[in-house]
Amino acid sequence: MKKILILGAGLSASSLIKYLLNHSTKYDWKIKIGDLSEETAIKKIEGHPNGEAFYFDVADKDQCYSEVAKADIVVSMLPAALHFSVAEACVEYGKNMVTASYVSKEIQELNDKAIEKDILILNEIGVDPGIDHMSAMKVINNVREKGGEIKEFYSATGGLVAPKHDNNPWNYKFTWNPRNVVLAGQGTSMFIRNGIYKFIPYHQLFKRILTTKVLNYGEFEMYPNRDSLKYREIYGLDNIPSMYRGTMRRPGFARTWNVFVQLGCTDDSYVIEESENMTYREYLNSFLKYIPSQTVEEKIANYMGIEEDSMIMYKLRWLGIFEDTAIGLKYATPAQILQHILLQKWVLDEDDKDMIVMQHRFVATINGHKKQIYSSMVIEGSDQTHTAMSKTVGYPVAIATKLILNGQIKTKGVKIPIDKCIYEPVLSELEEMGIQFVEQEEILD
Amino acid sequence: MKKILILGAGLSASSLIKYLLNHSTKYDWKIKIGDLSEETAIKKIEGHPNGEAFYFDVADKDQCYSEVAKADIVVSMLPAALHFSVAEACVEYGKNMVTASYVSKEIQELNDKAIEKDILILNEIGVDPGIDHMSAMKVINNVREKGGEIKEFYSATGGLVAPKHDNNPWNYKFTWNPRNVVLAGQGTSMFIRNGIYKFIPYHQLFKRILTTKVLNYGEFEMYPNRDSLKYREIYGLDNIPSMYRGTMRRPGFARTWNVFVQLGCTDDSYVIEESENMTYREYLNSFLKYIPSQTVEEKIANYMGIEEDSMIMYKLRWLGIFEDTAIGLKYATPAQILQHILLQKWVLDEDDKDMIVMQHRFVATINGHKKQIYSSMVIEGSDQTHTAMSKTVGYPVAIATKLILNGQIKTKGVKIPIDKCIYEPVLSELEEMGIQFVEQEEILD
Repeated sequence: MKKILILGAGLSASSLIKYLLNHSTKYDWKIKIGDLSEETAIKKIEGHPNGEAFYFDVADKDQCYSEVAKADIVVSMLPAALHFSVAEACVEYGKNMVTASYVSKEIQELNDKAIEKDILILNEIGVDPGIDHMSAMKVINNVREKGGEIKEFYSATGGLVAPKHDNNPWNYKFTWNPRNVVLAGQGTSMFIRNGIYKFIPYHQLFKRILTTKVLNYGEFEMYPNRDSLKYREIYGLDNIPSMYRGTMRRPGFARTWNVFVQLGCTDDSYVIEESENMTYREYLNSFLKYIPSQTVEEKIANYMGIEEDSMIMYKLRWLGIFEDTAIGLKYATPAQILQHILLQKWVLDEDDKDMIVMQHRFVATINGHKKQIYSSMVIEGSDQTHTAMSKTVGYPVAIATKLILNGQIKTKGVKIPIDKCIYEPVLSELEEMGIQFVEQEEILD
Repeated sequence: MKKILILGAGLSASSLIKYLLNHSTKYDWKIKIGDLSEETAIKKIEGHPNGEAFYFDVADKDQCYSEVAKADIVVSMLPAALHFSVAEACVEYGKNMVTASYVSKEIQELNDKAIEKDILILNEIGVDPGIDHMSAMKVINNVREKGGEIKEFYSATGGLVAPKHDNNPWNYKFTWNPRNVVLAGQGTSMFIRNGIYKFIPYHQLFKRILTTKVLNYGEFEMYPNRDSLKYREIYGLDNIPSMYRGTMRRPGFARTWNVFVQLGCTDDSYVIEESENMTYREYLNSFLKYIPSQTVEEKIANYMGIEEDSMIMYKLRWLGIFEDTAIGLKYATPAQILQHILLQKWVLDEDDKDMIVMQHRFVATINGHKKQIYSSMVIEGSDQTHTAMSKTVGYPVAIATKLILNGQIKTKGVKIPIDKCIYEPVLSELEEMGIQFVEQEEILD
């Protein structure tokens, strides 16, 4: 009987736990699930006889080491910053480890030790990062095997609302961490296009959008994601002239969100000293010029150079942000206040379902021809526990865990799933589960 | 014979050293001047018999303590971050100390010890901070003494080129640290107007300008300076409905500088990996959309919504920034590259003179009347050593040093010059030296 240790039983672990429990009888697994809330872990097990919940605190090093020592493989679904202490224990006891998070510098530095101990520390095997890496590498390696070369690579992912439930004027609801949505894109975004570096400061980000169509889901817009340049090295495309990674939203989102960025509502660097007694309307007015003869609505429309009867102004009004509603948050930053206002409106109803959309577009030269290849995936949530996000994060982690336990993934060291020996079996099983990329090709010349 | 120890002999210390040496015979002073470059210190003394230069390294704690022990008063013109170790030595040996820098938190915490040792640690007695505090407090206290109340306070300062030498289309040259000019205003600026808090994100700063006239020097524009709110407490105006502090430039500067801000040229947070081989033109293009059919000039004009034959575009062309000139800086940030380009053009000629402009505008109610009070100062540099900046920073420091040594300033503890016992004699002597505020009043109702 093999022992799987899962650390962290939050929303993103739901589908992962379900998958592993469902396979536990066939493969003779015992699954221990540790969380700061034992309640949460118990709930996720749903009484399955192969599951065991326990109180787990990663700060308790003795507990962490003793649990890792007893396991055959460790899946860490803890917040990204907490993986390292688990990884240290895994190296110490020679246990394989799987996470859905970006490889940190300190985990990368465990590579030699991991090889020495003959273990695999597999990271970035969720959805983004995860499915994006695997599905991209599949196309890239296919082109290479045909003797072709990738000239352009555009990739974007979005966490949105499934069409049937997409019933507000923003075409957006919070399906994941709201704070991350409010702060998204801060810093400078950089990519390369036809050999020309492109740098976009945050305040221009939501004006610099591209649009695309995805399968029969209609149109989406994308804005660039922080550092796309580093993906050249990750995918072995060091000299590619065009590399772009973005975030997807429904058309019209970015132009309206841009109002908040232009005003300064997403600033998280200072607190407003009397935020508690301010109203939503006063909050907006604090970013606008002092012009007593104009309404807040007029000032925003003028500031942004838009009409008061435009769709952008309608979306803002729909949020209730012009109302004299008290904020009621003490010493809040502008970003915290905006999040508070959005949380009243961008909430999923109980029967709403989310949706993950991912699309890669490649331009490749193969046998003297220029080809455009789209690889697209859309997956909708099943319910509010097994959301699209939970499934696309959890299933790849679960499948990889199974494949490592069963000896079908043999590679060692600190890895991300860009090797064929990892992505091929994982993608193949994801496809059986309905998480499937559709490839569309056209000859450009 | 009293001993004055001056630490730091850089540009900002020139007029200070000259003043103290000029008064040294009359008052029987010996002046020791320490600098990392003994050469620089020697040069500033110009052979005066009461001056003595020496090599000084603040990192050498023994040297610092032994020099402070021998002095009667210590003037620190070192970079702001280095004052604290000098201040510790001054407290240890019970010596008075004067600096032109903002009081740091750690220096403020020496207050009790300074009082115990019966010494004064006087900070913020340069120009900005310094002359601004003193000249403002003079008006504020005058209004109070007449039973009036300050309702609005706007204050701005600028380091510019004297009109006779103001011969480039930007009406601006570097007269002080170029790096600070390029990075100026980053973060969020905040002030209060008629009781309404106003928060301006960096990317809007150079569009949110006010204009004013100063004496017979014509028009200036101002943009807000970081945190104006804290000055309410400093000046004892806690409940003032309007408080604004700004930076002055000649009209048209901000709108053109805004192009750099909008593009992202002032970003200092990342390096451009091939900056060395990039040209100025490619640098600009890296912030613009990929539109092969348009020139860089067309793209900038479109991006900013301006005409190609506008004054803004002319000022940009005048910088040579559209040329195919190689940057030649390795791993440079956008801000470093912009500074490099500006340094070719915004340079003072040998006979050019700088200028400091400062203006306060108050609205006060006195005896039931609403009054507007302007208090304005303009001072031009004498040459490239005794610049307006060097004089306005150095003379207040020097005068305060003299007044402390002579027992005319008796206050103790960690202070800034907002008390009458400090600002009155300092302003009075500055006036004799031609650094003079002109007050203009008008009744508003």
